[in-house]
Amino acid sequence: MPRPRLALVPGEPAGVGPELCVRAAQRAWEADLVVFGDRGSLQRAAAALALPLAFAAADAPAAPGVLPLVDMPHPVAARFGTPEPGNAASVIAALQAAAGACLRGDCDGLVTGPVHKATINAGGIAYTGTTGLLAAQAGREVVMMLANAIVRVALATTHLPLRAVADAITVEGLQRTLRILEAALREEFGIAAPRIAVLGLNPHAGEDGHLGREELDVIAPALAALRAQGMRLSGPLPADTAFLPQRLRECDAVLAMYHDQGLPVLKYSDFAHAVNLTLGLPYPRVAVDHGTALDLAGSGRADPSSLFAAIEACTRLARHRRHA
Amino acid sequence: MPRPRLALVPGEPAGVGPELCVRAAQRAWEADLVVFGDRGSLQRAAAALALPLAFAAADAPAAPGVLPLVDMPHPVAARFGTPEPGNAASVIAALQAAAGACLRGDCDGLVTGPVHKATINAGGIAYTGTTGLLAAQAGREVVMMLANAIVRVALATTHLPLRAVADAITVEGLQRTLRILEAALREEFGIAAPRIAVLGLNPHAGEDGHLGREELDVIAPALAALRAQGMRLSGPLPADTAFLPQRLRECDAVLAMYHDQGLPVLKYSDFAHAVNLTLGLPYPRVAVDHGTALDLAGSGRADPSSLFAAIEACTRLARHRRHA
Repeated sequence: MPRPRLALVPGEPAGVGPELCVRAAQRAWEADLVVFGDRGSLQRAAAALALPLAFAAADAPAAPGVLPLVDMPHPVAARFGTPEPGNAASVIAALQAAAGACLRGDCDGLVTGPVHKATINAGGIAYTGTTGLLAAQAGREVVMMLANAIVRVALATTHLPLRAVADAITVEGLQRTLRILEAALREEFGIAAPRIAVLGLNPHAGEDGHLGREELDVIAPALAALRAQGMRLSGPLPADTAFLPQRLRECDAVLAMYHDQGLPVLKYSDFAHAVNLTLGLPYPRVAVDHGTALDLAGSGRADPSSLFAAIEACTRLARHRRHA
Repeated sequence: MPRPRLALVPGEPAGVGPELCVRAAQRAWEADLVVFGDRGSLQRAAAALALPLAFAAADAPAAPGVLPLVDMPHPVAARFGTPEPGNAASVIAALQAAAGACLRGDCDGLVTGPVHKATINAGGIAYTGTTGLLAAQAGREVVMMLANAIVRVALATTHLPLRAVADAITVEGLQRTLRILEAALREEFGIAAPRIAVLGLNPHAGEDGHLGREELDVIAPALAALRAQGMRLSGPLPADTAFLPQRLRECDAVLAMYHDQGLPVLKYSDFAHAVNLTLGLPYPRVAVDHGTALDLAGSGRADPSSLFAAIEACTRLARHRRHA
């Protein structure tokens, strides 16, 4: 089987993204990496960490210390720890160029570093997150999933104020989410008949309506219709006991109704190796599960575990998708 | 120091409560236990598990195989797995008698087994949970906290539908909760200057107002006023990263804004040894962190770890409180 080619985007140049890409370039991977980013930022990061770095053409095979590059120059030289709104357009352009390469089939998957949302907005670009940008570019509805070796947590809603969550949970929306999640587990994770544990919205999954009616009125009917079509779904389950280790062994993914219901457990269980996946795109996309860590940029102290886990996860997903 | 005397209430007689009390009676503890419960249910449980059991007067010292008892007879003989609404009044009476002994100072702490809420209600008694019942009997406002050896999680709201949570978080309510929590950490846990990590309500703790304003308008002002009075509070913190192991080492308790924000991590981290504490009563109260497990009753397969952890925790709390 040919090696997958993965597009790698450093993200915010003042943060730890460039140095993590330089660290990734020191290793041999089971995929060929090509960076869509600013040559100067990568060179500066390599110098700060005293690591060797040479660039190659975008379609060259990767080798330790050599990084195939599509240069996406930033107009302002990046300074560690100080994001520059003048670079916002080129940070976004790099993401879009990498996604474009995936959409065209030139690359088999996308791995993204952290972006600094406030700086992008300060640069005059309406941006609420990379996931939404990629969904719009591909014209697809997507599902966010965080995963490590212990648990995969998909989210029915993502970055909403808590008081908006209950009204955002609908039968149709849940069914679209579950269809995307189930297809991704089959096609990208290679699980023939995925088992999904679906959480309730309310404490104790509503306790038969005593603590909220959304389980009875929305979630259970949504699940019943999909079960009738053959999906293997459990729930709606009380969130506090759904993550017990023996329960996690009985499912392939958990669908949480909202951000803070599902992610504290995921990050507690193994944050360093957690990655953020976007399901529903025509290509696999994996992001690091940490921010720009501006305070660590250039120090060499940033932990590359999440980026390395993202590259490995994206490699596996790209291979499964080819076989699907 | 004299041994604390703890009141132990089995809870629903058709569930695993009686057999767990019988198991507790086989051990030596650093407290004297006195059970407030139905003699016949305890005998039946001992017979089912083939364990020795003798009863003693309520004020007798405990010894392995001997249980000091205040007999609270149930009118209907309990059957394993089938709760009987006709016993609802006596189940509640046993709880109130045990709490009364604590309020009078005859006992130094209260340990409670699981109650079957629907059966109590079916028996014509308005009951929403043991914690509320004990608070009303004592005339105190209380705070629910779940704890194991890894993390202590207190809740700003408990059993509310998710859509009611945001409006239930107020400056005054948070301050009352934090004062009760801080006093309990000092007086019952013996922590001289407790550090409390307070979560935000919204994902990413509202992200400077982009994902909700309760952090800016309610939580931060509540914390600022208490900090000015000397309390050691961090937050409002994003819930997804607040439970990272290195963060937990930097605080003595976490205050979550609602049930499913805090309890999945707690139960994932070590469910078997998790206990449920009621803070703010004039005596320490610890409950098991599991339900009636009707399907296991009489089988001998119910795990006594949570009850044993509750007895040990209540013993420690009773000792600290005496010294406070």
